[in-house]
Amino acid sequence: MREILEAVAVGELTPAEAESELAGYATTGAGRFDAAREARSGVPEAVLGSGKTADEIGDLAATAVETAGRAIVTRIDAAGAAAVRRELRESAPEATVQWDERANWLVATEAGFERPAIDAGVGVVSAGTSDAVPAGEAAMIAREMGVDVTRIDDVGVASLARTIDAVDRLREQDVLVVAAGREGALPTVVAGLVDTPVIGLPVSTGYGHGGSGEAALSGMLQSCTALSVVNIDAGFTAGTQAGLIARRIAAARGSD
Amino acid sequence: MREILEAVAVGELTPAEAESELAGYATTGAGRFDAAREARSGVPEAVLGSGKTADEIGDLAATAVETAGRAIVTRIDAAGAAAVRRELRESAPEATVQWDERANWLVATEAGFERPAIDAGVGVVSAGTSDAVPAGEAAMIAREMGVDVTRIDDVGVASLARTIDAVDRLREQDVLVVAAGREGALPTVVAGLVDTPVIGLPVSTGYGHGGSGEAALSGMLQSCTALSVVNIDAGFTAGTQAGLIARRIAAARGSD
Amino acid sequence: MREILEAVAVGELTPAEAESELAGYATTGAGRFDAAREARSGVPEAVLGSGKTADEIGDLAATAVETAGRAIVTRIDAAGAAAVRRELRESAPEATVQWDERANWLVATEAGFERPAIDAGVGVVSAGTSDAVPAGEAAMIAREMGVDVTRIDDVGVASLARTIDAVDRLREQDVLVVAAGREGALPTVVAGLVDTPVIGLPVSTGYGHGGSGEAALSGMLQSCTALSVVNIDAGFTAGTQAGLIARRIAAARGSD
Amino acid sequence: MREILEAVAVGELTPAEAESELAGYATTGAGRFDAAREARSGVPEAVLGSGKTADEIGDLAATAVETAGRAIVTRIDAAGAAAVRRELRESAPEATVQWDERANWLVATEAGFERPAIDAGVGVVSAGTSDAVPAGEAAMIAREMGVDVTRIDDVGVASLARTIDAVDRLREQDVLVVAAGREGALPTVVAGLVDTPVIGLPVSTGYGHGGSGEAALSGMLQSCTALSVVNIDAGFTAGTQAGLIARRIAAARGSD
Amino acid sequence: MREILEAVAVGELTPAEAESELAGYATTGAGRFDAAREARSGVPEAVLGSGKTADEIGDLAATAVETAGRAIVTRIDAAGAAAVRRELRESAPEATVQWDERANWLVATEAGFERPAIDAGVGVVSAGTSDAVPAGEAAMIAREMGVDVTRIDDVGVASLARTIDAVDRLREQDVLVVAAGREGALPTVVAGLVDTPVIGLPVSTGYGHGGSGEAALSGMLQSCTALSVVNIDAGFTAGTQAGLIARRIAAARGSD
Amino acid sequence: MREILEAVAVGELTPAEAESELAGYATTGAGRFDAAREARSGVPEAVLGSGKTADEIGDLAATAVETAGRAIVTRIDAAGAAAVRRELRESAPEATVQWDERANWLVATEAGFERPAIDAGVGVVSAGTSDAVPAGEAAMIAREMGVDVTRIDDVGVASLARTIDAVDRLREQDVLVVAAGREGALPTVVAGLVDTPVIGLPVSTGYGHGGSGEAALSGMLQSCTALSVVNIDAGFTAGTQAGLIARRIAAARGSD
Amino acid sequence: MREILEAVAVGELTPAEAESELAGYATTGAGRFDAAREARSGVPEAVLGSGKTADEIGDLAATAVETAGRAIVTRIDAAGAAAVRRELRESAPEATVQWDERANWLVATEAGFERPAIDAGVGVVSAGTSDAVPAGEAAMIAREMGVDVTRIDDVGVASLARTIDAVDRLREQDVLVVAAGREGALPTVVAGLVDTPVIGLPVSTGYGHGGSGEAALSGMLQSCTALSVVNIDAGFTAGTQAGLIARRIAAARGSD
Amino acid sequence: MREILEAVAVGELTPAEAESELAGYATTGAGRFDAAREARSGVPEAVLGSGKTADEIGDLAATAVETAGRAIVTRIDAAGAAAVRRELRESAPEATVQWDERANWLVATEAGFERPAIDAGVGVVSAGTSDAVPAGEAAMIAREMGVDVTRIDDVGVASLARTIDAVDRLREQDVLVVAAGREGALPTVVAGLVDTPVIGLPVSTGYGHGGSGEAALSGMLQSCTALSVVNIDAGFTAGTQAGLIARRIAAARGSD
Repeated sequence: MREILEAVAVGELTPAEAESELAGYATTGAGRFDAAREARSGVPEAVLGSGKTADEIGDLAATAVETAGRAIVTRIDAAGAAAVRRELRESAPEATVQWDERANWLVATEAGFERPAIDAGVGVVSAGTSDAVPAGEAAMIAREMGVDVTRIDDVGVASLARTIDAVDRLREQDVLVVAAGREGALPTVVAGLVDTPVIGLPVSTGYGHGGSGEAALSGMLQSCTALSVVNIDAGFTAGTQAGLIARRIAAARGSD
Repeated sequence: MREILEAVAVGELTPAEAESELAGYATTGAGRFDAAREARSGVPEAVLGSGKTADEIGDLAATAVETAGRAIVTRIDAAGAAAVRRELRESAPEATVQWDERANWLVATEAGFERPAIDAGVGVVSAGTSDAVPAGEAAMIAREMGVDVTRIDDVGVASLARTIDAVDRLREQDVLVVAAGREGALPTVVAGLVDTPVIGLPVSTGYGHGGSGEAALSGMLQSCTALSVVNIDAGFTAGTQAGLIARRIAAARGSD
Repeated sequence: MREILEAVAVGELTPAEAESELAGYATTGAGRFDAAREARSGVPEAVLGSGKTADEIGDLAATAVETAGRAIVTRIDAAGAAAVRRELRESAPEATVQWDERANWLVATEAGFERPAIDAGVGVVSAGTSDAVPAGEAAMIAREMGVDVTRIDDVGVASLARTIDAVDRLREQDVLVVAAGREGALPTVVAGLVDTPVIGLPVSTGYGHGGSGEAALSGMLQSCTALSVVNIDAGFTAGTQAGLIARRIAAARGSD
Repeated sequence: MREILEAVAVGELTPAEAESELAGYATTGAGRFDAAREARSGVPEAVLGSGKTADEIGDLAATAVETAGRAIVTRIDAAGAAAVRRELRESAPEATVQWDERANWLVATEAGFERPAIDAGVGVVSAGTSDAVPAGEAAMIAREMGVDVTRIDDVGVASLARTIDAVDRLREQDVLVVAAGREGALPTVVAGLVDTPVIGLPVSTGYGHGGSGEAALSGMLQSCTALSVVNIDAGFTAGTQAGLIARRIAAARGSD
Repeated sequence: MREILEAVAVGELTPAEAESELAGYATTGAGRFDAAREARSGVPEAVLGSGKTADEIGDLAATAVETAGRAIVTRIDAAGAAAVRRELRESAPEATVQWDERANWLVATEAGFERPAIDAGVGVVSAGTSDAVPAGEAAMIAREMGVDVTRIDDVGVASLARTIDAVDRLREQDVLVVAAGREGALPTVVAGLVDTPVIGLPVSTGYGHGGSGEAALSGMLQSCTALSVVNIDAGFTAGTQAGLIARRIAAARGSD
Repeated sequence: MREILEAVAVGELTPAEAESELAGYATTGAGRFDAAREARSGVPEAVLGSGKTADEIGDLAATAVETAGRAIVTRIDAAGAAAVRRELRESAPEATVQWDERANWLVATEAGFERPAIDAGVGVVSAGTSDAVPAGEAAMIAREMGVDVTRIDDVGVASLARTIDAVDRLREQDVLVVAAGREGALPTVVAGLVDTPVIGLPVSTGYGHGGSGEAALSGMLQSCTALSVVNIDAGFTAGTQAGLIARRIAAARGSD
Repeated sequence: MREILEAVAVGELTPAEAESELAGYATTGAGRFDAAREARSGVPEAVLGSGKTADEIGDLAATAVETAGRAIVTRIDAAGAAAVRRELRESAPEATVQWDERANWLVATEAGFERPAIDAGVGVVSAGTSDAVPAGEAAMIAREMGVDVTRIDDVGVASLARTIDAVDRLREQDVLVVAAGREGALPTVVAGLVDTPVIGLPVSTGYGHGGSGEAALSGMLQSCTALSVVNIDAGFTAGTQAGLIARRIAAARGSD
Repeated sequence: MREILEAVAVGELTPAEAESELAGYATTGAGRFDAAREARSGVPEAVLGSGKTADEIGDLAATAVETAGRAIVTRIDAAGAAAVRRELRESAPEATVQWDERANWLVATEAGFERPAIDAGVGVVSAGTSDAVPAGEAAMIAREMGVDVTRIDDVGVASLARTIDAVDRLREQDVLVVAAGREGALPTVVAGLVDTPVIGLPVSTGYGHGGSGEAALSGMLQSCTALSVVNIDAGFTAGTQAGLIARRIAAARGSD
């Protein structure tokens, strides 16, 4: 910190540059919304729909499209999606809206918006159909970060042959997000079969003792393989963590 | 119940016979210790060493040898084992004592004692060496019930090939007890590979969140295979349940 | 594994046979749905209704009837049951549909479908009327596996005489599934009275501390009888485990 | 309160009498130790040994003997008991000391001390030998309150006949304290057989999930019989509660 | 047990008498519903409304009125109460129905039904208005058992003066049921002020950590006064336990 | 932040001054140890003894005395205290060492060190003798911050008169720290009697369900009085929070 | 206590004065509702809307306005607010009603009611918009106690620059209430930056493991800064605790 | 799988090659120990010292040195380290042994053993000195995998300036492992400042509610930054996961 301040003192940096350097953002009004986060931490700013009214979601999404060219909303329901379309019809009539009713996310992009393209692949793996929502959220955000996403579904360990059949596709990926509910054994089995980094994504299926994803979470934490884990149903976190790793790999490939 | 009482009323049953029928034991002093439990519930009476002094264990084991021809003690330490030997040197100098220092059990038998021989096989499977104590306890009690026990060790799912290699041996058994700690995935994987009844035995390994066997237990309860479970480290319970099933199968084979 | 691969190498096995042997299924399209699981693990494939739309349930049930002659659906509501009937009216107009509104399951069978018939009996025991749903699910799946199921209801330990009255019927069974909520003491009392293998099925009744079946589950795990346990409300698991044991016993009787 | 204060104002009560009435004790130095609690709440003051040094226990016990004629100490070890004897040898050489090494309590009485004698009976029931410590503590304090205590041991529900055999003795008591560890089913079974008030005393036996008495506690709280409960291993509380009930019954009998 | 059976053998008891003695009920059809429980355990049989359909509640209540002269239903809603009235209009048109909408219970009595009258008093104490439902349930069942019930409401410890003001009324009771939610301190404070037996009744108020009555329950279990406890919201259990104690006291008074 | 940086740019602040302003400390080697924390957050730096070797504790304490004139060590045992004395004998032979063996803290001061003197009073209240350790730690650190500390001990609610007797002394304090274990009701009762800010300090006494201070903590969190709380046994935190409040009050009195 | 009673005895105090002194309230009918609490504990009486019917809320609020000039209601919905307006239209037509639909509180004041004015400032800080409800409740009650409240919103630690930017405003306050959900790190970071007393207010955001505010609560309890904490979502408690501290500071400033 | 088997059938693969391909190891005796795991999953085989005798550890380490040129042992104590030295003195007298007494690991390498060298950097960050053991374990295993490891210690958020000072060094790393105990806020703060992938490593410091690392773990799981997490104290897992990511990045740099 001392060096930056000395640079300011001798005029090598303007105060604004120093602020950017030290604080991670410049005080430029509405532009603060997104530029800061993506630049600083590599993760696109997203709107969490749950706990907000449809109108609030509509407003925030319109602002995001205006300032960043893209709005990403998670945990959004039909009313929220309708509000976003309504808002954009006025403020950005040429925007494209993609709403995944099953995985509960929406992405709206200004005409001409170009996603980054990252030369690295993330595999999003699921044990069964009940893992679709968090797995879908993980795949979406990784894709929006520019990653090449491959879905490998329905490879749960109760029918081990399906898991083994998928080994080659699993090994081809640069990073794996592996979603599983109930006993959550799939990430452990996968991490034992590949030398790819695996991020376990516990899913809130199951009932009774250890239900709501708690058994899956604690099982993944206890795994004796080299597994890291995110919270139950935290598809967004798993996808962004995978995206950050993929960005590093792609940068190393010289193609970022 | 009415029928039994009417049989007593008309003299078809003596009161003692009726008591045996209704209560499961006859009031015959020291004989009550063992005859009752094994006859009624099929499980040999055993002494739980933990929480007793060495002297108490020694006394109880000597009584068991005297009345039942055999003493089974679990969770016994070196002092307890020494006390048993000391007691038996006097009361039953020809008895044979087998003490498993690792799995913490002791079996003493009167000279000439004959174990039952049951025509059915129980496989005791373990994920790793840290499962040795509960797995050993399960194997011991099943063996004492007369079952033919096969140990299948070190087949944890982190190296899936080891598990798959064992499939044939797993399928040959009549019942399986599968012990696993940490994330406890092995019983799920095994139950997905065989059509044998599988009893999951969670082991108190692991640390941090879900440690002490809790992750393994909740994972086994959440398994989507046809798995039943016993408490953490309850090797004795798993072994006796497997033994009861084996007895039924052997009886059906006409060889009990 | 080496042996199988050597058998392939010398032509004793075709690759397809080896695959079946190693993987548990053959890659034959829609046939994979059911043939694999029932053949490999002895448990009929079933559709879990909860978490699926009525349309998805209808589709899956119709496919199951087509490929396996029978669809088993658990945790299904009225809308799901209507969707199944609608689908089958077209694809399998002669199919029979049985829907248990109370225990929330549905079984549809193609005309002429024949259940297996297993020469072994499972007793499904309940402490009170609030245990009806999981007990009913356990009884259904055991019956579909071909087992002879006997219901022994309303024998809770608060009126111990009712339990004791049932002893003879309890002893006649080859396996017992014992459902109980609240404090869950019935399986312990039953297992102390019989030499039959007992599977405890905790039920999510009760409120306050230890409610939702947690007291019943932990009580069954702590039982000092030879009891194995399934998760709270896991009637399907208890019934299939009982069914697998019954199959083994029946096979031993030479009548499978 | 207003009435008492008006009585003071007009001189009908001295300030000290009013204080006693309002506050439950009079500020008379060492006399405060005991007179207050026993008079106010009916429970003899006791010293909890755990967390105190041997010297502190010795001092407190000597003071108790001096002021109240009796010292009751719970959770006391050998060093504490030795310190009490040492202190009393000087301050009260004719006192009698009774130390129960197993149940960890000590009672010292001045020569000539007379326990109250209450015309009511408390039954202290235990499921097995591992319940001895809390059951012993409950019996001791009830006895010190003057109650006629009957021990009914080793009637655990795994051998139901033993429980049923005890029914007559159970029905003869005015109040029952029923101690049980592991699954803690005994108080429920007993309360279903008698019309006596039953206080459940969960014991910290058991291991794994629900161990340390938690399964027993939650099972007793979930019981559908008319059972009240104390904390795990809280023999002292169970015994005093039973003693208070017995005192009320005895008072009604006109013999307090 | 042996003695009873010998009495049957020599004809001193009929089998039916022996059955009653041993089992606690006689097999006499619908009469079994109530006669057994009240005679054996002193607690009137009651119908738990929750988990039953309105029609089932109506049927059960009508049967109870017919066989026992009275139906007691807890956790009953408006639809259930309407169903009871509808059923009784036909089967027992002269019955009286009392429905407490707030405390969710209903008592229906045949014309001419006479409650027992017990010469003992139970105080039902509450900390605040949010404790009304469980306190009301406790008061109702104690009253139905014939006890003289006194309500002492709104004496929570946050305004300690209100508690102290109530001391005299508290001391006049034979038994106290003390209901409290949130931190649940009231039973501890009361038990420190009186020598009456106190039964703590934790109430499911409160939110956040320790909410839903868990803080109140654990606080009452940790209390260093002579307190016994029932489960959260278990007003029925607290009231019946208090009723059983009151019956004993009244019996001792010679007026049962 | 912009303003500070602009001040640096125009030379109004040296870089070092700006660093101090922005970062809360200046990079001056060993001086960083203490000057920073006390100046920035008002809390004297302290050494947590647990988890450190005696030698490490000795070193750290000597450094603290050298740089700040005072060392405060919590959770220190006899070996640690000896090491501190040994170190100081060389580096600061005139220092004074105060070690509280019971409350496990040590304070060493250079000759001539002067504590701040704050014109505000903190009352440290305890329910019983088992609260001595955390209460002592709270009192020590408040005293080291310069506060006038009053101890009000042994006023637990089981003998309510003792609590009421203390009301005047309680009301005289500017802030209260109230320590209580088991059911932790004392802070609630106190906060209902005074208009002083009360900080609840739960203590890890108690056993069984809710033991180790968990019942006390959740009870204090559920209290309907205006109570804030610290973690179980966190006497240091409670004392510093009380000290910070006292400093604000004293500053307002104009006497800091 | 003795002194007060002696003062009554010699006529220095009337019984009514003594009662007020000892009990904290005078028995004067409706006036007891509010005068007592505010005078005794410094906290204005408030009505908790949740768990009450709209009519009950309306009645209580009207009574409060009548007796205290002001009604404060928390956790109130639209129906409750409507009922309050309806009641007041009749009983106090000139009253002013302020309803915060988002933070769920309502304050009604009689015409001419004057809030106290306290010369001290409380900062209410929030990490994000989802903390609005508890933060709003804390700000409201502090304001009603007369404190000067400053809102400092949206300074969550994920964008640390926003937190650092707020340091000056944070340091200007006399007390800080810091609300944060999810991982709850903000109060720790703030308390490390200021020497103001900080009260942590955990918020029930978040999902999965540690959701519903439990992670935030335990994180604040574990903080190594001088932080005290209230229960999850307990904005009212945090605000009143801050208000009590502010009152003390203002009193010291001589302006209360 | 079909393809491999067909390749065996036509002789393109030997059975042994197919086994290696399918199972991940070849059945070659002692060689199975290590070759398999490192080749298949990229993680060097390590010996977990805890739960093994010193002799067992010595044997295993000697075998590892012999077959893989290196032994890595975690959670090893002084006796274990001595046993390793003793064994190696005979079997590999020229081996080098490095034992970290503080972080409890040992690495022994054969003379001439060459670690891989990976062109990627892992930063291991700790909040304070109590995080040294897990952080040390993470650094060790990453180093053994060939990664360039940088330690960034003592940057806990209670003194935020220290964290901010480290930003440049944090941003230079390819992957970060961030260890923190108590409230575990550091990984959240770091992940908000950098665009590097961050793996949170909760440490079992802290006491009371949320102690033993549980607060840190749940806080990290709740973090709204892109953070993945490992179990409490699982330094080995965090280090290997970081190592796997670094390997991918290095491979992309073309320097593996």
